[in-house]
Amino acid sequence: MSSEIDLQALTARLDTLAAIGAIEHGGVCRLALSDADKLGRDQLVQWMHELGLTVEIDRIGNIFGTRPGSDADAAPVMTGSHIDTVATGGRYDGSYGVMAGLEVLRLLNLHGVQTKRAITVAAFTNEEGVRYMPDMTGSLVHAGGLPLEEALATVGTDGSVLGDELQRIGYAGALPVGRIVPHAYIELHIEQGPVLETEGIQIGAVQDLQGISWQRIEITGQSNHAGTTPMRMRRDAGYCAAAIAVFVRDLAKRFGGGQVATVGSIELHPNLINVIASRARLTVDLRNAREPMLRRAEGELAQYIARLVHEESVRIESTPLARFEPVRFDPRLVRLIEVIAAEQRLTYMHMSSGAGHDAQMMARICPSAMIFVPSHQGLSHNPHEHTEPADLARGAGVLLEVLRRLADE
Amino acid sequence: MSSEIDLQALTARLDTLAAIGAIEHGGVCRLALSDADKLGRDQLVQWMHELGLTVEIDRIGNIFGTRPGSDADAAPVMTGSHIDTVATGGRYDGSYGVMAGLEVLRLLNLHGVQTKRAITVAAFTNEEGVRYMPDMTGSLVHAGGLPLEEALATVGTDGSVLGDELQRIGYAGALPVGRIVPHAYIELHIEQGPVLETEGIQIGAVQDLQGISWQRIEITGQSNHAGTTPMRMRRDAGYCAAAIAVFVRDLAKRFGGGQVATVGSIELHPNLINVIASRARLTVDLRNAREPMLRRAEGELAQYIARLVHEESVRIESTPLARFEPVRFDPRLVRLIEVIAAEQRLTYMHMSSGAGHDAQMMARICPSAMIFVPSHQGLSHNPHEHTEPADLARGAGVLLEVLRRLADE
Repeated sequence: MSSEIDLQALTARLDTLAAIGAIEHGGVCRLALSDADKLGRDQLVQWMHELGLTVEIDRIGNIFGTRPGSDADAAPVMTGSHIDTVATGGRYDGSYGVMAGLEVLRLLNLHGVQTKRAITVAAFTNEEGVRYMPDMTGSLVHAGGLPLEEALATVGTDGSVLGDELQRIGYAGALPVGRIVPHAYIELHIEQGPVLETEGIQIGAVQDLQGISWQRIEITGQSNHAGTTPMRMRRDAGYCAAAIAVFVRDLAKRFGGGQVATVGSIELHPNLINVIASRARLTVDLRNAREPMLRRAEGELAQYIARLVHEESVRIESTPLARFEPVRFDPRLVRLIEVIAAEQRLTYMHMSSGAGHDAQMMARICPSAMIFVPSHQGLSHNPHEHTEPADLARGAGVLLEVLRRLADE
Repeated sequence: MSSEIDLQALTARLDTLAAIGAIEHGGVCRLALSDADKLGRDQLVQWMHELGLTVEIDRIGNIFGTRPGSDADAAPVMTGSHIDTVATGGRYDGSYGVMAGLEVLRLLNLHGVQTKRAITVAAFTNEEGVRYMPDMTGSLVHAGGLPLEEALATVGTDGSVLGDELQRIGYAGALPVGRIVPHAYIELHIEQGPVLETEGIQIGAVQDLQGISWQRIEITGQSNHAGTTPMRMRRDAGYCAAAIAVFVRDLAKRFGGGQVATVGSIELHPNLINVIASRARLTVDLRNAREPMLRRAEGELAQYIARLVHEESVRIESTPLARFEPVRFDPRLVRLIEVIAAEQRLTYMHMSSGAGHDAQMMARICPSAMIFVPSHQGLSHNPHEHTEPADLARGAGVLLEVLRRLADE
C-alpha cells in the first residue's frame, strides 16, 4: 500500500499551501499567527474535514486531526510537524510532515483500513520561533515544558502578544493543552542538511537530536598602532577572537562523531587595517548529540579562554545565549523505521538531527522518532529549499507503514 | 650646553602650538592646509623670525628656518618634522621635533656659537596624509619622489585641491622644491610605540624604518546551517579568515626580530550565530625592517592561502593595498646619536620605527637618522599622547649636540 502514495495528491497539497504567503523564488513567508498562517490553518482544517477527521484545536492553537481506531480507549499514534515558516522559508520545512500525514490517512480511508489505535495528524503552533520566542512553543506547551499562561503572554518581535494574535486569527481553541498523550510520535521532515544527499541515502532514521550550546564571547584588549607595537607587547582582541574560532574548529575535528562547532559572527573594534583591535565580539555554536561530549567541548573551550586571558593579557567575558541538552529518540521506533525502509528496498542510515523539531518536545511524553528525506544541497530556511518528488513519496511511504504498524500495537 | 635646554621655553612653545586647533582632552586637530594649520604656520614663522632665522617657503609649502654657518658654501645640517596633525591628534607628534629644533637654535644664539655649516629647521607639509594622500607629501616632493604639479593637483577627502588650499592659506612659496640638499638630516620624534617606556630606556637611535605590506583578503565559501552541516562538508569563510589571522600571528612570533603582523579588520557575512559564513573580508598588515624577511612573510602567507583554498574548498582573492620597502638610516649618524646619548649619561638603544616619518623621504637625498623619546603607553594619534617633560628635554639635548657636531664637519 505504501507504494500507492499519490505523489500528485501530496505535491498538490504542498503547492496549495505554498501559495499562501508565497514569496519570490518559490519561497514562503507564513510567520506564526500572521494572516498568512491563519489562511494556511484554514486550508489545513478544511482538508482534515474533507478526510473525515475529528478536528480539535487546543488553547495554544495546536491543530489535531484524528482518524478513529477500533479501540477507543487506546492511546492514538501521532504524526505531524508545523506549518509556520521563517520569513524567507521554503515549502517543505514542516509542511511536508503535515501534508504527508494527510496523504497517509487518505490512503487508509481509500483502502478502508481499520487500525486498532486512532491516528492523529498534528500541526503545532510557532515551531520556528521567528515572531515569538522560544521556538517549538506549541509542542513545548503540549509536553508540559512551558505553562500555557506564560506562552500566551509572550511578546513578539513586532510587539504583538501571542495570546491576542491567537484570538485574532480564531485559533485559540477549547481543548486543554496536553490532553492527547500518544502511544508514539513519528515526525517526517526534510533533513535540512546535506548528509543524505551527499551519502546518496534515501531515508534517515533519526536516532537523536543534537544538544546545543550557544555563547557570546566579548574580548577586551588594547588598541595600539600595528607598526610600532612589538608582538610581545600586544593585547590583541582580534587575534584572540580568531584563535577561539580556530580552536573550536580543531576541537570539532578532534572530537569527531557528531561534534560540530561554528563561529558565524565576529566583530572587531575599531576594525581598521593598521590598528590592533581593542575589542572583539564573537559567537560560538557547539552541538553534539551526546551530552557528556557537549559538556566536555564547553569545558575545553572555557579552559582555552582562561589560557588566552593569561597569555594575551586580555579580559574575556562569556555569556550563555542558549543551552539545550541532546534528545535521544526511542531506539525501538528508530529500528522500526530502518526495518520498514529495508522492506521497501530503500537505502537508509541512522543519523542525528542538527536542527530542533517538535519531536524533541513530544519525546518528553511518549516514545518518539523522526524520518528524514534528503534536502538538495542541504538548503533550508531558504526559498530554494528543495526535495526531489521521488524522495517526498519515499518518505511518505515509510511514514505510512510505520504509523500502520504502531496503530495496530 | 645640552644640559641647558630650557624645558619651560620648549613646553611653552608646544603649549602655544597645541592651543591652535585644540580639541578635548588636550588633543589637537590641525589638518594639513586648514585654517588651523595656517595659524600654526604663522606662529612658527614668527618664532623663526624672532630667532633671527632666514625663513624660506617652497612651492609645496615646506617651511625652512636657517641659522647661517661660517662657510656659506657648505651644505647645511637639517632637522625638523611637521606641525600638521590627524583629526584627533596629540600635541607632540611632529611638533616636538620642530619646537626642539627652535630650542636648539635659541641656545646656539644665546651662547653665540658659530658653526661651520648652517643649521636649518624644517616643517614639512602634510606629513599625516589625513586630508590629502599620500602622506609625507612635503618631504616626498622635496626628495624628488613626487612631481610638484602632481602633488599640487591632489584632491582631498573634502574635495579640496591641495594647491588651491596652499594658495588660500598663503603658503604657496617661491622657493623651488628640493633646492636645499642637506649635509645630513636628523629628526627628533616621540616613539609612538611602547618599546622605550617598557624597556625603561631614555633615547632611541632609530636605525631603520619598517617596510609595510598591506593586503585585503576576500574569501568566498558557502553559507549553511551550523547544526546540520557536518564539519567535513563545510566551506566556512569565517574559519578561513580566523585561520589566516592566527597564521600571520604565529608567523610573526616565528620570524621574531622586528616582524609584526596584524589582522585589525574582519567582517563576516551573514554574521549570524547559527549560519556558517559564506563570505569573509579581512586585512593583513605585515611589517619588517628587512626587505627579504618582509618578502618571505608575504610568500609564506600566499602559500598558506593557497593551502586553505585547496583544503577548505573556498575561493580567496588577495588585493594589495600598500607596499613600501624598508628604509635604512645612515649607520654613522645612528652611531653618533648613541655616542652622544652615552656621553650625556642617558640610556639608549637602537631600534626600528614602525611608523612613517619625513626622515624616510630625506634619506633618499642625504644621510639621515632619527632620535626617539618614550611615548607614554605608546599612545599616539590620540589626545592622550604624552611624553614626560624630562624626556622632552633629554631628546632636545641629544639633538643639540648631534646638530652641533654635524654642523662643524
